[in-house]
Amino acid sequence: MSAVVIHDPTLRDGQHAVRHQLGVAALRGYAQAADAAGVPVVEVGHGNGLGASSLQAGRAAVSDDVMLSTVREALSTSRMGVFMLPGWGTSDELRKAVAHGTDVVRVGVHCTETSLAERHLEFLREQETEAHCVLLMSHMATPEELAEHAASAVGYGAQAVGIMDSAGHFLPGDVGERIGAMAAAVDVPVIFHGHNNLGMAVANSVAAAEAGARIIDGCARGFGAGAGNTQLEVLVPVLERTGFTTGIDLYALLDAAEFAERELMPAPPVTGSLSIVSGLAGVFSGFKHQVLDHSARAGVDPRDVFFELGRRQAIAGQEDLIRDVVAELSEKAGA
Amino acid sequence: MSAVVIHDPTLRDGQHAVRHQLGVAALRGYAQAADAAGVPVVEVGHGNGLGASSLQAGRAAVSDDVMLSTVREALSTSRMGVFMLPGWGTSDELRKAVAHGTDVVRVGVHCTETSLAERHLEFLREQETEAHCVLLMSHMATPEELAEHAASAVGYGAQAVGIMDSAGHFLPGDVGERIGAMAAAVDVPVIFHGHNNLGMAVANSVAAAEAGARIIDGCARGFGAGAGNTQLEVLVPVLERTGFTTGIDLYALLDAAEFAERELMPAPPVTGSLSIVSGLAGVFSGFKHQVLDHSARAGVDPRDVFFELGRRQAIAGQEDLIRDVVAELSEKAGA
Repeated sequence: MSAVVIHDPTLRDGQHAVRHQLGVAALRGYAQAADAAGVPVVEVGHGNGLGASSLQAGRAAVSDDVMLSTVREALSTSRMGVFMLPGWGTSDELRKAVAHGTDVVRVGVHCTETSLAERHLEFLREQETEAHCVLLMSHMATPEELAEHAASAVGYGAQAVGIMDSAGHFLPGDVGERIGAMAAAVDVPVIFHGHNNLGMAVANSVAAAEAGARIIDGCARGFGAGAGNTQLEVLVPVLERTGFTTGIDLYALLDAAEFAERELMPAPPVTGSLSIVSGLAGVFSGFKHQVLDHSARAGVDPRDVFFELGRRQAIAGQEDLIRDVVAELSEKAGA
Repeated sequence: MSAVVIHDPTLRDGQHAVRHQLGVAALRGYAQAADAAGVPVVEVGHGNGLGASSLQAGRAAVSDDVMLSTVREALSTSRMGVFMLPGWGTSDELRKAVAHGTDVVRVGVHCTETSLAERHLEFLREQETEAHCVLLMSHMATPEELAEHAASAVGYGAQAVGIMDSAGHFLPGDVGERIGAMAAAVDVPVIFHGHNNLGMAVANSVAAAEAGARIIDGCARGFGAGAGNTQLEVLVPVLERTGFTTGIDLYALLDAAEFAERELMPAPPVTGSLSIVSGLAGVFSGFKHQVLDHSARAGVDPRDVFFELGRRQAIAGQEDLIRDVVAELSEKAGA
């Protein structure tokens, strides 16, 4: 019976589904409910992490300061986590998070850009705050590349390192291979964070645990943009049935999820056409609104745009490619 | 590249989610959309199958006759399927279905009661209508028992035989073992029909295909009671990516699913607490309303009732056990 540490980003990744509008009562209520269930880490923040509240990424309903102090106060035994993407977040935000008593900070970078996390990971170690590094869009790198980047992150000071299936592209075999390679390359816990675009979030998470992942993410009702994340209250009993221990109380966890469904979200995530297509294409689903927008104006099928972006290996931050692809598809159709 | 035949019970199993209230326009519209996508079999009927419209099982909005003639007329290349549970349906209903030009009839029986299907399977063979036999609540039988019952069904004339994960209890390994044993025991195609209580419907269906299943069920958006069925428009591309061919057009299938979400259901299925608990306990989720009802009156936790029903191996039709279990739990709590 191996132990798996559940990391719960409901109050951070879920924000994407509600344009970062979770208020104080929702944050406090869910944090208390997760704490009562014995969830080890409760992550909070703007969907894009510390310092990301802005016109471009969407203004959050409450400031980082208020989010952190609210959740800090609500937790008795659960640890508090935050997420940061270098660029959106800076050392100033990290300092603030540490001052608020954050227990775990995750620094996220594109899967081949670990060096961007170096300075932040080193800073966190100096502050004696637990530092994780997570590799985004991890289907775009081979198991060997991910193992190398994991080792680099550990060299910078990461005390856990892992992958996010940001596009929801993986099937269980893909996950097992990657987690296995990373677990063999580092001595720290390996993290897996799934998305449900292909209906595989729970199965992928179990495959991750079986391949050696020891920190696994899940959100209440899968709360998250598009198809959502791994459904936490399903993941936990399935892991337990598969032979892992989580230390979480099932009934209290089910209650927390009911609170989340009632108080956090208009409705639980649905796997719609563009979630499926972006998952198949391996494209970040956050491109959705811009793809829909440009496609409609040019009269091209947004599904074709996603598949073409996938062929070109577009990554988050390369939204400019959308207009190029739409223009080319539109020309081809007219030709 | 093995071929898998997709069987689509959206217009039958989905009825459970809307108290069997699908009307003519919805039936026609979805059947046309599935037909346009090249879905091989479109199943229609009351949720409990032919002849089940009644006060006890719920009255359907339209009669079997209207359902069958509507879908028959809407299909150009897809074949029409129906479902029947001996007891709800009789030979009279089978005769009617044959007269309406039904191409495939599925006779469903509890996983250890194949002999109940004998007469109906024989009758269908006499009528030269394709006859399938599906074993319900199949987690309650061992792979060896299922293989034996599959062989019996083929002896009675079944031209395909398979299992339904009626309680949504299986994990992929469970499915692979059972389908593998059945595929080794019979020369006809083996069927798998999943439910999503543990988030595993797609993963279980892929495991089934890999173990030799050649007919797999999926519903648009997973339309079905509680946690719903396997999401068809996710299943198809995932099967194709895994190396199986379905012959279905992905874009047209996505369009059919959007029609279904808009016109057939108030909202896509959500995996709530009692879906999870009934899946873990291995109890038919159709017990839900009675469990909630009796539990509320006696002041016991409905989740405890589901787990205790699971321990007692309650099967569909044994709803009387619910009151016994509730009374005993209530006494224990009071003692």
